[in-house]
Amino acid sequence: MNEINAVLESSHAAFQQYKKVSGADKSVFLQAIASEIEALGQPLIATAMEETNLPEARLVGERGRTCNQLRQFAALVKEGSWVDARIDTAIPDRAPLPKPDIRKMMVPLGPVVVFGASNFPFAYSTAGVDTCSALAAGCSVVLKAHPAHPKTSAMVAHAIEMAVEKTGMPKDVFIHVQDSSFEAGKALVQHPLTKAVGFTGSFSGGKALYDYATQRPEPIPVFAEMGSINPVFILPEAMMVRGDKIAEMYAASITQGVGQFCTNPGLLLSVENPALKNFATQLAERMKAIGPGTMLHSGIANSFVKNRAKALEQKGVVLLAESVEKAKENQAASTLATVKASEFIHNHQLVEEVFGPYSLLVTASTIGELKAAAAKIPGQLTATIIGEEADLIAFADFIDLVIEKAGRVIINGVPTGVEVCPSMHHGGPFPATTDSRFTSVGIDAIKRFVRPVSFQNFPQQLLPAELKDNNPLGIWRLVNNEFKK
Amino acid sequence: MNEINAVLESSHAAFQQYKKVSGADKSVFLQAIASEIEALGQPLIATAMEETNLPEARLVGERGRTCNQLRQFAALVKEGSWVDARIDTAIPDRAPLPKPDIRKMMVPLGPVVVFGASNFPFAYSTAGVDTCSALAAGCSVVLKAHPAHPKTSAMVAHAIEMAVEKTGMPKDVFIHVQDSSFEAGKALVQHPLTKAVGFTGSFSGGKALYDYATQRPEPIPVFAEMGSINPVFILPEAMMVRGDKIAEMYAASITQGVGQFCTNPGLLLSVENPALKNFATQLAERMKAIGPGTMLHSGIANSFVKNRAKALEQKGVVLLAESVEKAKENQAASTLATVKASEFIHNHQLVEEVFGPYSLLVTASTIGELKAAAAKIPGQLTATIIGEEADLIAFADFIDLVIEKAGRVIINGVPTGVEVCPSMHHGGPFPATTDSRFTSVGIDAIKRFVRPVSFQNFPQQLLPAELKDNNPLGIWRLVNNEFKK
Repeated sequence: MNEINAVLESSHAAFQQYKKVSGADKSVFLQAIASEIEALGQPLIATAMEETNLPEARLVGERGRTCNQLRQFAALVKEGSWVDARIDTAIPDRAPLPKPDIRKMMVPLGPVVVFGASNFPFAYSTAGVDTCSALAAGCSVVLKAHPAHPKTSAMVAHAIEMAVEKTGMPKDVFIHVQDSSFEAGKALVQHPLTKAVGFTGSFSGGKALYDYATQRPEPIPVFAEMGSINPVFILPEAMMVRGDKIAEMYAASITQGVGQFCTNPGLLLSVENPALKNFATQLAERMKAIGPGTMLHSGIANSFVKNRAKALEQKGVVLLAESVEKAKENQAASTLATVKASEFIHNHQLVEEVFGPYSLLVTASTIGELKAAAAKIPGQLTATIIGEEADLIAFADFIDLVIEKAGRVIINGVPTGVEVCPSMHHGGPFPATTDSRFTSVGIDAIKRFVRPVSFQNFPQQLLPAELKDNNPLGIWRLVNNEFKK
Repeated sequence: MNEINAVLESSHAAFQQYKKVSGADKSVFLQAIASEIEALGQPLIATAMEETNLPEARLVGERGRTCNQLRQFAALVKEGSWVDARIDTAIPDRAPLPKPDIRKMMVPLGPVVVFGASNFPFAYSTAGVDTCSALAAGCSVVLKAHPAHPKTSAMVAHAIEMAVEKTGMPKDVFIHVQDSSFEAGKALVQHPLTKAVGFTGSFSGGKALYDYATQRPEPIPVFAEMGSINPVFILPEAMMVRGDKIAEMYAASITQGVGQFCTNPGLLLSVENPALKNFATQLAERMKAIGPGTMLHSGIANSFVKNRAKALEQKGVVLLAESVEKAKENQAASTLATVKASEFIHNHQLVEEVFGPYSLLVTASTIGELKAAAAKIPGQLTATIIGEEADLIAFADFIDLVIEKAGRVIINGVPTGVEVCPSMHHGGPFPATTDSRFTSVGIDAIKRFVRPVSFQNFPQQLLPAELKDNNPLGIWRLVNNEFKK
């Protein structure tokens, strides 16, 4: 592990320089990364297509999102108010004791280790949100490439290195590690100079990193976005009024991107009524018609087959539909199963994620049973309620309970499709993530990699620009309890 | 542990009601707690004096601070902007996909377990910052009374219960637990309905709770404020110009409240020069003249004797001064020791806290040695730099390094005395606390007990007031990227 040690030493040295770089200069750097990624052109898309089996349009779109994210963080740090500056000026003649001058702002934590994700080779990998928000915060980044797309990762890493060079950033502010061994990941998390970890992937992977990090002599925060089955509650009135439309919408959502999204709806819950049977038939017919899709890599395809089989063999679970077309190698068949809520409530296995185009329809015989089933669902990234106005009023208390389970609650929509905007929270109570208080999508992701520091009685010339009296950066600050620029 | 289970069940049931209480009503409740505490009058002060050995003036002051804190949080939740509301309205005709309406705000985590501290029987105990910020956030609280002041805790708990009754809050929104056993504390942290923990006390106590919490099947956040030795760096020019004044200021700070503050300066560091010897003599003379003080309880007094002895027996450590007056039972002698930086650098024991009126003067032979000694100091609540203008300019890089170690950095002051204001950060890198990103003093303490939730496509009538179009609460919000009321 000498190599890992050298990596962290270099990253730490770069951090000592980088933490002093201004928001304006970090902004130029992040924009340059976006431009360098775009400059890679079609060869980057072709390489990613080859390594991930994802279609061209999806990858072009994801590249756009990745560069958009970089530019959003660039704008955020250029504007500068994100540091949450607060100023309380001195009151020297206050009785019984004088009040000192105290000012506070966010400072970066230090070197951050980021693990690339397999299902988003651009947006959650090498130059994805974790890297991008850590760099925006002023942290150096050590990126462990995902072994499923090493060439793609190397190309993006090179783009970042070009941006580092062109904008004069400290050389090792970003270091790309191409060691896919379990030991390397562990050593990166356990290294004393590592100050935080970002991860997107499986529950077992994320939980292992969390355990390493919290059991270090000096524990560090881990932001692991892990499994989620994203329950969808279809309320009775909506089921009767527009069951067909809901079936159409959900057949598409369950199978979108071969179900390889963390927000994939893996669980549909409803109450038995005449319309439910029709809905199940409609959804089943649509799922049969949707062909199998090629998954990201053979490991994920094999896991899908294994996890689907395990789900289908649970007591009371019935296979309702699968793609009529037979799945070829590395392909996953679109799958719909069903189970009664009375069984679901007693079987913890049924809330385990089956990553891929799979969903389980849970049918409750009463509203009480639907609520009992909801209570058994652990923390989630999202939860969705499908309801008519009458449903939503009748189920207001239920919606209240659902909010306790999830990081994002959607009414009359699908959980897939995560908007990148300030009001997006992509996170949720454990086991969806290891820290429900932070998001891994949107500008607030920067908050994961900073901590506040108070500066007491500092002379003006020693204060960071964000805290100087004359507000040279023109940022929003809370000054003596008044929010102003 | 049936009793603990019943406590958490009741707290959870109360939370279901309390989470829906408006900011205005929570504000009335918090103000009522302050009034009820004040209404306890002199008997509360007398009881606390008897149980803690703290002098009357200090306890009267601390009660004032406690009620002031309650009223600050009352004002915060009444005003309401703390929920960090963000709104991104829909763009139905956006291409290629419509943009949904998404809104985000903070919601409370759930039942919080708070451990009272021994050294602040009011401000960090039963109705202290942890309780107060958790209630402000909308969480229910289970308070484990500190066994060193059970009567004081019971009186304050009764005041809270009176406020609950008078303001019509859910009955079990606050539950007082008077079980001092180790097992009860562990069971409270491990109970599945507990969603966060607040603690102020020793490293061993805080770290044990952290380990229980992070090793639960569902890990939860722990905000433990633990030991800190609060290093003070006295730079050469300042030492020469005003060594006498610094000695006077620090003799008072080291012995204030019998050294029983988390911000007590347990470590002074400087570079050898003619003035340093004079400073050491001056400080030693003053420490000798300051009599021993009675500590909070016999356990703390015994620990002081033991930890002081352990520190003094370390290689190269020399006792410079102690109170001339002999310490009686439960008293601690004001103590100053010294050691060369060359020894300090190699002895990890010397950065362990000696809780009480003790400080260690570390003398470096060169500035390089001073920097090496600074590098050996782990995370701290505070760090202080004493310097003339010339020092501060010459040591700018050093100050930069010091900022990495601490939650608050003070120039030309003392670390004792923690101002309660929005710009105060009372926290710091591990082992000072278990989470450097949060404060346990000031209004930002509320952020420990909340998480963001996104509301996607919610009809107006189902949205919380904070997120409705017409902004009925008149709070600051980020609306389509524009910050406004």
